Amino acid sequence: MSLEKVLNAESVAIVGASKNETKRGYQAIRTLIDEKYSGRIYPVNPKEKHILGLECFPKVSAIKGPVDLALITTPAKTIPAILEDCGKKGVSGAVLIAGGFGELGQEGRTLENDVVAVAEKHHIRLIGPNTSGMMNLKDGMNLVGLKNAPKGNIALLTQSGNMALTLITEAQIKSRKGFSYYVGVGNEADIKFHEYLEFFRKDPETRSILMYVEGMRQGREFLQQAYKTTQDKPIVLLKSGRSSTGRQSAGSHTGALAGMSEVAKGAFERAGIIVIENSDELFPAAETLSSLPPIKNKNVAILADGGGHATIAADLLTDLGISIPTLSEKTQNQLKKILPFAASVPNPVDVAGGTDADPSIFADCARIILNDASVGGLLIVGLFGGYGIRFAESLALMEEDAAHQMGKMVKKRNKPIVLHSLFNSSRPHALELLRYYDIPVYDSLDIACKCIGVLSTYGDYLKSYKAKANFVLEHGIKAKPEGDEIIQKALADGRTSLLEYEAKALLALHGAPVAKDKLAQTEDEAMAIADAIDGGVAMKIVSPDILHKSDAGGVRLNVSGAAGVRRMFKSIVKEARKYNSKADIRGVLVSPMAESGVEVIIGTKIDDQFGPIIMYGLGGIMVEILKDVSFRVLPISPRSAKNMLRETKSFPVLDGVRGTRPKDQKALTSLLLICSEVIEAYPQIAEMDLNPVIVYEQGLNVVDARILLKTGGQ
Amino acid sequence: MSLEKVLNAESVAIVGASKNETKRGYQAIRTLIDEKYSGRIYPVNPKEKHILGLECFPKVSAIKGPVDLALITTPAKTIPAILEDCGKKGVSGAVLIAGGFGELGQEGRTLENDVVAVAEKHHIRLIGPNTSGMMNLKDGMNLVGLKNAPKGNIALLTQSGNMALTLITEAQIKSRKGFSYYVGVGNEADIKFHEYLEFFRKDPETRSILMYVEGMRQGREFLQQAYKTTQDKPIVLLKSGRSSTGRQSAGSHTGALAGMSEVAKGAFERAGIIVIENSDELFPAAETLSSLPPIKNKNVAILADGGGHATIAADLLTDLGISIPTLSEKTQNQLKKILPFAASVPNPVDVAGGTDADPSIFADCARIILNDASVGGLLIVGLFGGYGIRFAESLALMEEDAAHQMGKMVKKRNKPIVLHSLFNSSRPHALELLRYYDIPVYDSLDIACKCIGVLSTYGDYLKSYKAKANFVLEHGIKAKPEGDEIIQKALADGRTSLLEYEAKALLALHGAPVAKDKLAQTEDEAMAIADAIDGGVAMKIVSPDILHKSDAGGVRLNVSGAAGVRRMFKSIVKEARKYNSKADIRGVLVSPMAESGVEVIIGTKIDDQFGPIIMYGLGGIMVEILKDVSFRVLPISPRSAKNMLRETKSFPVLDGVRGTRPKDQKALTSLLLICSEVIEAYPQIAEMDLNPVIVYEQGLNVVDARILLKTGGQ
Repeated sequence: MSLEKVLNAESVAIVGASKNETKRGYQAIRTLIDEKYSGRIYPVNPKEKHILGLECFPKVSAIKGPVDLALITTPAKTIPAILEDCGKKGVSGAVLIAGGFGELGQEGRTLENDVVAVAEKHHIRLIGPNTSGMMNLKDGMNLVGLKNAPKGNIALLTQSGNMALTLITEAQIKSRKGFSYYVGVGNEADIKFHEYLEFFRKDPETRSILMYVEGMRQGREFLQQAYKTTQDKPIVLLKSGRSSTGRQSAGSHTGALAGMSEVAKGAFERAGIIVIENSDELFPAAETLSSLPPIKNKNVAILADGGGHATIAADLLTDLGISIPTLSEKTQNQLKKILPFAASVPNPVDVAGGTDADPSIFADCARIILNDASVGGLLIVGLFGGYGIRFAESLALMEEDAAHQMGKMVKKRNKPIVLHSLFNSSRPHALELLRYYDIPVYDSLDIACKCIGVLSTYGDYLKSYKAKANFVLEHGIKAKPEGDEIIQKALADGRTSLLEYEAKALLALHGAPVAKDKLAQTEDEAMAIADAIDGGVAMKIVSPDILHKSDAGGVRLNVSGAAGVRRMFKSIVKEARKYNSKADIRGVLVSPMAESGVEVIIGTKIDDQFGPIIMYGLGGIMVEILKDVSFRVLPISPRSAKNMLRETKSFPVLDGVRGTRPKDQKALTSLLLICSEVIEAYPQIAEMDLNPVIVYEQGLNVVDARILLKTGGQ
Repeated sequence: MSLEKVLNAESVAIVGASKNETKRGYQAIRTLIDEKYSGRIYPVNPKEKHILGLECFPKVSAIKGPVDLALITTPAKTIPAILEDCGKKGVSGAVLIAGGFGELGQEGRTLENDVVAVAEKHHIRLIGPNTSGMMNLKDGMNLVGLKNAPKGNIALLTQSGNMALTLITEAQIKSRKGFSYYVGVGNEADIKFHEYLEFFRKDPETRSILMYVEGMRQGREFLQQAYKTTQDKPIVLLKSGRSSTGRQSAGSHTGALAGMSEVAKGAFERAGIIVIENSDELFPAAETLSSLPPIKNKNVAILADGGGHATIAADLLTDLGISIPTLSEKTQNQLKKILPFAASVPNPVDVAGGTDADPSIFADCARIILNDASVGGLLIVGLFGGYGIRFAESLALMEEDAAHQMGKMVKKRNKPIVLHSLFNSSRPHALELLRYYDIPVYDSLDIACKCIGVLSTYGDYLKSYKAKANFVLEHGIKAKPEGDEIIQKALADGRTSLLEYEAKALLALHGAPVAKDKLAQTEDEAMAIADAIDGGVAMKIVSPDILHKSDAGGVRLNVSGAAGVRRMFKSIVKEARKYNSKADIRGVLVSPMAESGVEVIIGTKIDDQFGPIIMYGLGGIMVEILKDVSFRVLPISPRSAKNMLRETKSFPVLDGVRGTRPKDQKALTSLLLICSEVIEAYPQIAEMDLNPVIVYEQGLNVVDARILLKTGGQ
């Protein structure tokens, strides 16, 4: 159901309306009146006749006109009955302010479930509970009681009232930008993050989305929606709860599943979301992205009036993966013509006093620099805006001239300029002018760098948008009948895992080059299989009851000779019995010894927030000790598969190092895609482990594979 | 020579004095007068009689009274002659504003050397050149022309005039703190960073030192001085020029050797310096450290009036290595008594509305929390200071009460409180009060967290101060006569490296367990040596002309049998001749094959900025691809040696992993200390390479060692 009637409600009932000025039920009405809410306001309180001049109703169902939305300010326990009454009235949505639900543990969770059940029955959509409220600024529908929040084109979606207050205060004090909507999602009991996102994606007033998230209930749906959104509107997001204390704190706050894993960060970024780690950068990043065109080529020029700022900026931009290209000879010559001899012009450009007498030269420099084809955006650092304050008042006029010129320049060339100014907090007129032209100005050098950085990150994302995965799993479509059969057989057996040879057979069906194993049920069979193989063989126990074969003494390598094979067969079976006397032993898998190569590991599992994910890493110490692995939410694209290899620190081992030849990355990339396909094809699979996979100069070999099924086999 | 007469000059000559208001030579005099400089001011200009009412002299030597310091504002080329004249007068110091020296390349470097030579001849100490100047704020000796810089107890030492302006502006706008001195070190041509540091260490007005560094000429002397300083006064430092563009930019600015290596960062931290990466944190860190007692136990409590801020703060503090301990039951019970039911009290403490009606409850909470023995410091985050603004004016008075209480609390308990307040920029009186009590307040949550973090870092450093190295190399004292002999023999031979067996002998003299090699000069000798060894042997070419033995086919492993040894001896010598027909071949080293164990690498070299340094890492891919190594400036303490092992990501391999037994870390630690001793003992050594060293459960084996000598053998 669309959130139209909830977020753009034309009539609001205030349940818990009050004449007491300290009560939320008074403040809410006061604010709606003050902010000139364009819809109807209905106070609801059985004890009052009128509040603030408005007629007061005993209950929602007693209101005469239609009611789109109910703001419920009464305690948790009263809510089910109130929602029943709202249901009679046909209310479309409710904002539940009260805490005391899922965030307090089991008892609260039960109440939360009850509330959701009542709402679902009556088709009422819920914001919260445990929320600071909601605002629709264009209609003056302010259900938060926070005054003078600036209007604008940023939609604000947070899980903390204080963070909303922080961001709104920052906008008021430091910016010309403001908000289209604010929603405190609270416990996300009914309406989920992705539903708000969908609404904002379609909302014409909203140009970017700013999010603070502690936990998220439906991660995959969110990724799918984010993927659709970011092609038009940037999303800037800070996810807290990285640390265990942070997670506890977040948990006690929203009751949602918290924790920012590497998986989440990677997935958010792959969906085009700008992930911010530093809360100071959150609003500025959104401000910049909703003001300026993205940078298309990762290349930024720095224009400075002093060495220190330029040096620090160069360091920070480099850390952010941005190139600072040497300007063309033509550009450098043009700059030299208008700057003094001591100026440095390659990039960073240091004007070396060349703007002291006339700061409008900043605009001339900016024009020359933005004309350079290699430059995608410009960062100006230093004193601009303060020449009039620090040196002579008349210079302020020349700064204003420069501001006008630069403002028009950005529009004309479609390349962004971001400013750092030491004098920003003095609010000189030139900097106000820049803001008028949508050029943001920061007194923090770090933040200015980050902002030009996010323009580059976003531009880079948009460029490769087409190659990205959309996070949609098409379950079943790619399944093969023989594959289904293998899984159905295991499920019919009551098993929750495939046997090794079944797992390999399933992978082989989809094109994976698996080891050429054969199952021997007797010693004689084992000898016959070994006999047909050149050199030694590997022998492995096959039993649905033995998942960790090595622990059960069930793996022997380099076995050779008829007597050896026979002896080992016996020994393996004996050890297995010892390990688990009730184990159902199906035989022993005999295979050629794998040639040596580079060992890698591929695994998949079901993530609580995002569903199926895949992991890749180099075998041994690299995975186990250094955790040098890459993750993706499935399915993956060929591009993603390639990047997974390149992201690991150990990639050089695969790429050829110390004179060794490069290994077959193409085969490994294909194998990752095969794994993706298998997981997409068979939703019954819970976990898959290919360990080890040995990669050669040509081709590879899946030496061992393990597949676990979902219990219950759904 | 002490810098007393330079930084505390009682008389200043302004060379290049001018009546033109736009000239530095006018502004300098104007500022000295305005800031009520307590000493004598002597304008120097042959064309003027009087400037700003002061008598003007044709040259420095014509001044009647004594002159401590000359501020020279004239161009680079005029400086040698002016300094000659200053020399005649007996001037103690000069500030050289002009650029055009080392930072411009060879020509400028020659001029810089000339200037230094003249100064040395006349015992004149130089600040700069290429500097924005110097200020002594207590005496009003402002040689920068920057007005209204706030006085205080922070000494500011920077290599960028703009960064100085940034920091001074920040102090003016956001703080009650200020500066005792400012020095722009410029090109560091004469007075070096460590000399300023020594002065500030002894200066009674200075309580902390704030530095911005691009490059540094004498790193070791700086570390030694920093080590002495930080036990009394904190040093906060940002070093830029990490990136190659940053380095170029820094180079073009100061002409000094730039680049912030991992070595530098580690060494700075080991000397107790607080290294800052984010320029926004630079002034706040210095402000906090010069205001508050350090945290002794790494434990911080968070007090919040909303979940979001607490969660973010918990994440940030955890990232900074700070613990957020669960408060004692007693503390929690006391908090519960004064806070509402919904409050969270374990830590972070969330007042959950409990301060809405009376924000002085913040002080009650703070008192209870700081009473908890496990708490070393308190971070308060959220709206404090804004209750009067956001809710009701009367609440401002209660906030002021809380501020008074908390101010006294910090002094009494000697535990710090740092505040984050959303309303900081509105400058409510309560927050001004906190600053009066030396409790800093930040509107950035990130910065507030960093500030409580640096108090913990500094406290932690002070606690282990005694165990730290002082960066002093006692060359020669630990040398052994036989060791000197080995080196002298090589030098007498005209060699710049020791032969492998000489290097091992040298290490063995100091107690290193080296491989039991013997030198065979003939096939027969080789056979005899091999015969006395159980199992196969390793054979390696010995030639002063062949440094990379493997490249010359000069290493054979697992050689066995008389015939084999004979054949290999021939083959090794033959290959060596092929590799370098003129090589002086001394024979073949024969040694038992080393048993397998964990291979590690130890190396030493001479760092441009810091002198001898040592590197440790696990052999193979860990060093070569993952650069998983740890560095230290030599000499090292036993504690440092131990930490070097633990710092590497691969440490678990040494510590026993996947069921393997731990390796002999004690032996490895000893070997690192032996290497430190060897480098300290023999200053002729340029580079040392122990690769591989094989570490066992008991003991280790230095299988190969290479020692290079300094060319010229100094």
